[in-house]
Amino acid sequence: MMEELINLVNKKLDEYLEIKYPKTIFESMKYTLSLKGKRLRPIMCLETLRMLGGKIETALPTACAIEMLHVQSLIHDDLPCMDNDDYRRGQLSNHKVYGEAAAVLAGDALLTYAPQTIIEKSTDLTSEQILKIIHEYTKAAGVYGLIGGQIVDIESEKQQFEKNKEETLAYIHIHKTAVLFRLAIKTACIIANANDDTTLELDGFALKFGEAFQIYDDIMDEISTFEEMGKTIGKDKQAKKLTYTSLYGVEKAINKCLVLIKECHDIIDKYGSEIFNEFLGKIEKRLNTRK
Amino acid sequence: MMEELINLVNKKLDEYLEIKYPKTIFESMKYTLSLKGKRLRPIMCLETLRMLGGKIETALPTACAIEMLHVQSLIHDDLPCMDNDDYRRGQLSNHKVYGEAAAVLAGDALLTYAPQTIIEKSTDLTSEQILKIIHEYTKAAGVYGLIGGQIVDIESEKQQFEKNKEETLAYIHIHKTAVLFRLAIKTACIIANANDDTTLELDGFALKFGEAFQIYDDIMDEISTFEEMGKTIGKDKQAKKLTYTSLYGVEKAINKCLVLIKECHDIIDKYGSEIFNEFLGKIEKRLNTRK
Repeated sequence: MMEELINLVNKKLDEYLEIKYPKTIFESMKYTLSLKGKRLRPIMCLETLRMLGGKIETALPTACAIEMLHVQSLIHDDLPCMDNDDYRRGQLSNHKVYGEAAAVLAGDALLTYAPQTIIEKSTDLTSEQILKIIHEYTKAAGVYGLIGGQIVDIESEKQQFEKNKEETLAYIHIHKTAVLFRLAIKTACIIANANDDTTLELDGFALKFGEAFQIYDDIMDEISTFEEMGKTIGKDKQAKKLTYTSLYGVEKAINKCLVLIKECHDIIDKYGSEIFNEFLGKIEKRLNTRK
Repeated sequence: MMEELINLVNKKLDEYLEIKYPKTIFESMKYTLSLKGKRLRPIMCLETLRMLGGKIETALPTACAIEMLHVQSLIHDDLPCMDNDDYRRGQLSNHKVYGEAAAVLAGDALLTYAPQTIIEKSTDLTSEQILKIIHEYTKAAGVYGLIGGQIVDIESEKQQFEKNKEETLAYIHIHKTAVLFRLAIKTACIIANANDDTTLELDGFALKFGEAFQIYDDIMDEISTFEEMGKTIGKDKQAKKLTYTSLYGVEKAINKCLVLIKECHDIIDKYGSEIFNEFLGKIEKRLNTRK
């Protein structure tokens, strides 16, 4: 089931982004987009739509666009002036293959290729629905979303804080991670014409899952290996990043994460989702091995 | 008249982008956006709407969004890994003030803040109109527009060509410069509900004006001063960029530019536009002084 969805997303991503002139930029965009990933965000979008009784085909352009946005943020985050990471998803990062200029431009290009794809490929949606989706997209991608999270993250490394550490960490988690989970689930609600109560409930799930996922990522940065994660490990600590583990310690982080996972189950179990169960189960299992 | 429009655009840009948390990123976005510029693209949008009998107020969010996109491209173009320019509009460029990471992020943020502004502030437009505008925006901003132009420009510096030099230069001119003039004029046509013939004619004007403007810019890079242009001069030659002047020489460039300006007059004069006359007149006058 999960594997099928991943294959479907990969196929559509490949189809939506054909290599044209000028080749370098298309190849650079496609390089990071094609790296083997969990496709967590697009699958969350498709699975939410399925739970709500919609046809997943209608959400494919949106789901793929959210992955494009995610990949855009990875390409720019890996740049030397940001996290300076040479590896991503187990392969060389974009700028190590195509150079910094092309990596900056590939990220820029994906940032508008995503909404362009939604507009051009969502033939089953109304203009109103598409416009709502694009609006959510712009908020999630920009200064009120990912970019806000990223700049606060960078400033926290330099020990520059506008707010206290607890508030700053909560802001980073909501804006760097939960934001795309929320986008995936909210756009599915728009496509399914879900009512306000359902949308609000599922948004609550997305928020908790986003927080759990980020705390899990912080924990993994301390306890896992390059082979397991496909990226350099221990960099957060080295960079003195503000993370859940740096603020509260690994044990507390594990407990907090497991509580959040439990709360996620409380919301989502009534919808009956194998896929979300699998996501939550993997994190639980990995953390319980460590405990 | 021109001065009034510039002031109106400046006022709206200031209003649309309020400084909020996290401050650094808003300040960095606002810094380059607030630098004294000609506001050529937003004014082209507003003036086209006026020519077509529309109320310019209805186009202000779109006009300002196009300036945001233009400024985004300037911020990223100035980065050390791109053109490595320390000055812009006579002031320090964004990364010289806020650092490279914030400059990359400020550009990213503007790229989605622009369509967000169109969606949230265009209260007089229909969803259909807004969606059409956003679609044009994504095409102009991305790999089929600005980004395509920029990557081919960079490759031409390295003497890497997928096409011959003449075709490559034409591609750069259309995609780096004309693209935003076309966006400004096409979005005004959408807002005015202009018919296809008018839209096509004005798009032809935008294309010629864009080409003239880029050739003029190439000429200025050879014959003007930092004081006149507000940016480093002679960099194109130093970087061995493919420009109209490098390919055909300054004299031929001046003649070509004057021919294009004449063709622009042939199209636009029947609409009776003081503003476009002023734009075209300035270039003509400056080139005639040099001849």
